[in-house]
Amino acid sequence: MPRTVRNELEPVKWRNGTLQVIDQTLLPLRLRYVRMRTLDQVCNAIRIMKVRGAPLIGVVGAYGLVLASKRIHSKDRDEARRQLRKSADTLIATRPTGVNLRWAVERVYSASSKISSTASLETRLLEEANSILDEELRAAHSIGIFGATLIDEDDTVLTHCNAGALATAGYGTALAVIRAAIEEGKHVSVIATETRPLLQGARLTAFELAKDKVPVKIIVDSAAAQLMARGAIDKVIVGADRILRTGHVTNKIGTLPIAIAAKFYGVPFYVAAPISTMDLETDPSQVIIEERDQREILYFAGKRIGPRSVEALNPAFDITPAELVTGIITDKGVVGQPLEDNLRAKFAVEATNSAR
Amino acid sequence: MPRTVRNELEPVKWRNGTLQVIDQTLLPLRLRYVRMRTLDQVCNAIRIMKVRGAPLIGVVGAYGLVLASKRIHSKDRDEARRQLRKSADTLIATRPTGVNLRWAVERVYSASSKISSTASLETRLLEEANSILDEELRAAHSIGIFGATLIDEDDTVLTHCNAGALATAGYGTALAVIRAAIEEGKHVSVIATETRPLLQGARLTAFELAKDKVPVKIIVDSAAAQLMARGAIDKVIVGADRILRTGHVTNKIGTLPIAIAAKFYGVPFYVAAPISTMDLETDPSQVIIEERDQREILYFAGKRIGPRSVEALNPAFDITPAELVTGIITDKGVVGQPLEDNLRAKFAVEATNSAR
Repeated sequence: MPRTVRNELEPVKWRNGTLQVIDQTLLPLRLRYVRMRTLDQVCNAIRIMKVRGAPLIGVVGAYGLVLASKRIHSKDRDEARRQLRKSADTLIATRPTGVNLRWAVERVYSASSKISSTASLETRLLEEANSILDEELRAAHSIGIFGATLIDEDDTVLTHCNAGALATAGYGTALAVIRAAIEEGKHVSVIATETRPLLQGARLTAFELAKDKVPVKIIVDSAAAQLMARGAIDKVIVGADRILRTGHVTNKIGTLPIAIAAKFYGVPFYVAAPISTMDLETDPSQVIIEERDQREILYFAGKRIGPRSVEALNPAFDITPAELVTGIITDKGVVGQPLEDNLRAKFAVEATNSAR
Repeated sequence: MPRTVRNELEPVKWRNGTLQVIDQTLLPLRLRYVRMRTLDQVCNAIRIMKVRGAPLIGVVGAYGLVLASKRIHSKDRDEARRQLRKSADTLIATRPTGVNLRWAVERVYSASSKISSTASLETRLLEEANSILDEELRAAHSIGIFGATLIDEDDTVLTHCNAGALATAGYGTALAVIRAAIEEGKHVSVIATETRPLLQGARLTAFELAKDKVPVKIIVDSAAAQLMARGAIDKVIVGADRILRTGHVTNKIGTLPIAIAAKFYGVPFYVAAPISTMDLETDPSQVIIEERDQREILYFAGKRIGPRSVEALNPAFDITPAELVTGIITDKGVVGQPLEDNLRAKFAVEATNSAR
């Protein structure tokens, strides 16, 4: 697939045996890569969200396991794999809600079963990580092409958090749809919610759309409903951290109220994600919602916001029920309602529950 | 009505011919009064939100007109009233959405028609402003008493922005209900949305509830729906900047999505406000939604958040349709659905539209 957007952001790359990622905590003020050589560095970068976005975390996790393999010196294949397993589990535990991380790390780990000797371990894992990066980048472009058919001329699209190049191997998921529609010649403008507490919308989405000269305005998260009420939003497109068999969508906190408001005002609500975001096994009630440090809410730029004695609740994600989702834009096509049936048909899912 | 809460916050007071208000931009870090002697100082304090909250702005506006009268030296009654009219219009224009400001300023202005000579102008206006302060404080306590009947033991109440002592002459509107329920011996805890962009929830609501030892936790605005989804919210109570004849409620941006989510999850959604917040004449389509400076969103503590080239939309209020409101808690009692009929009955409103 040709890469048609110039100066495209490359949020993750592997160069000379090191992993390099854009430090997203510094954006939009500085665009700087950090180099990582150890598993610890990768885990820490994921935890403090130097890298974030479910598909990107998957790719970074894949390379993280490659870095871990560099430190495994055992000649014994089983012992090497035991050590690798431990590193894989450490990586997966850094962010419990998104599913791409587990998927990518398990895939790289599985590649270790195919080696004939431990001498080829790192090379084999690197091949697999590179494949994941390439496939995810192709998936992003496919999402764009499928999703662009849903966009009309002069649409104003609301998006939440950052589901862009910076959330993926490049090009994006929700923003891939917008990019592809624009590449097809449509005029599209974007409303980006700032996305509290970490402001990925104001910092990252606005940054990468402005860089691509896509018209974008920032609002506070809670202004989305009012814009819908006055007819200023034609479509909502968001990304996802995990899409369940039922069509339930786990995504950044604040996705759910936008979906509820979109239903109330009859605005189509789409979720764009690669199939690596699908979790065909977990029920909505089993999804672990990561609770992050309350200081993300209580402090800003080192300055205390709330009174010292008061605590905050900081759930990082919410779960949007399938009934609120107009369609899911994947790299294999758009899946409409009823989502559970259509997801099952598309991915030939065993409906384990109904077979019981 | 006895004032039953000790150490109650007094956000506005008149001492020795000067108006004193708590500078709310400094809270929760510093509790400091600013003294104001001129109309300009009052207008500026309202504009930059040193004082905010519709009922409080009304009281402050009333005293603002008293300060203006001090500078009127004409002995001619008509000329003095012309000058006073100009000051009244300047005051009213500082915040276009809330209705208490207009109501209070017009009431003080009207008092000027009853003077026999301009020598008594200031004294007469001050009497009227003092009456407004006293009545609004009594109204707050009445709201508490009526609203407390709606609160059950162990309720967790979600509130948005600050509808507390700091939004009123004292005691609050939404928070008056919580205070009164607690004074009746009920156990109530509060979830306060931080309320972007100016963080009145995190800064003011958390501050005054913590001061009164009411259990309170802060969330980002967009987390309210997720808490409702998991059954963690028993009731929502918010204040209002303007309540229309139809029962539509204009309030801080972010009220609407909470109301929509509350409807979706079957959580009762109450609005608490004194009758000075009622606007029986304006239709929902005629309400002017104040658009505030986009720097409120794009900067935090002097630090730029978004990229330099990107703009923000900053509507300060939204309008919640009457159908989403379970009931309105006023100082004259609780008004339930159907709101338009019941408001008309309670306030003997002429239904001008239906008479056409």
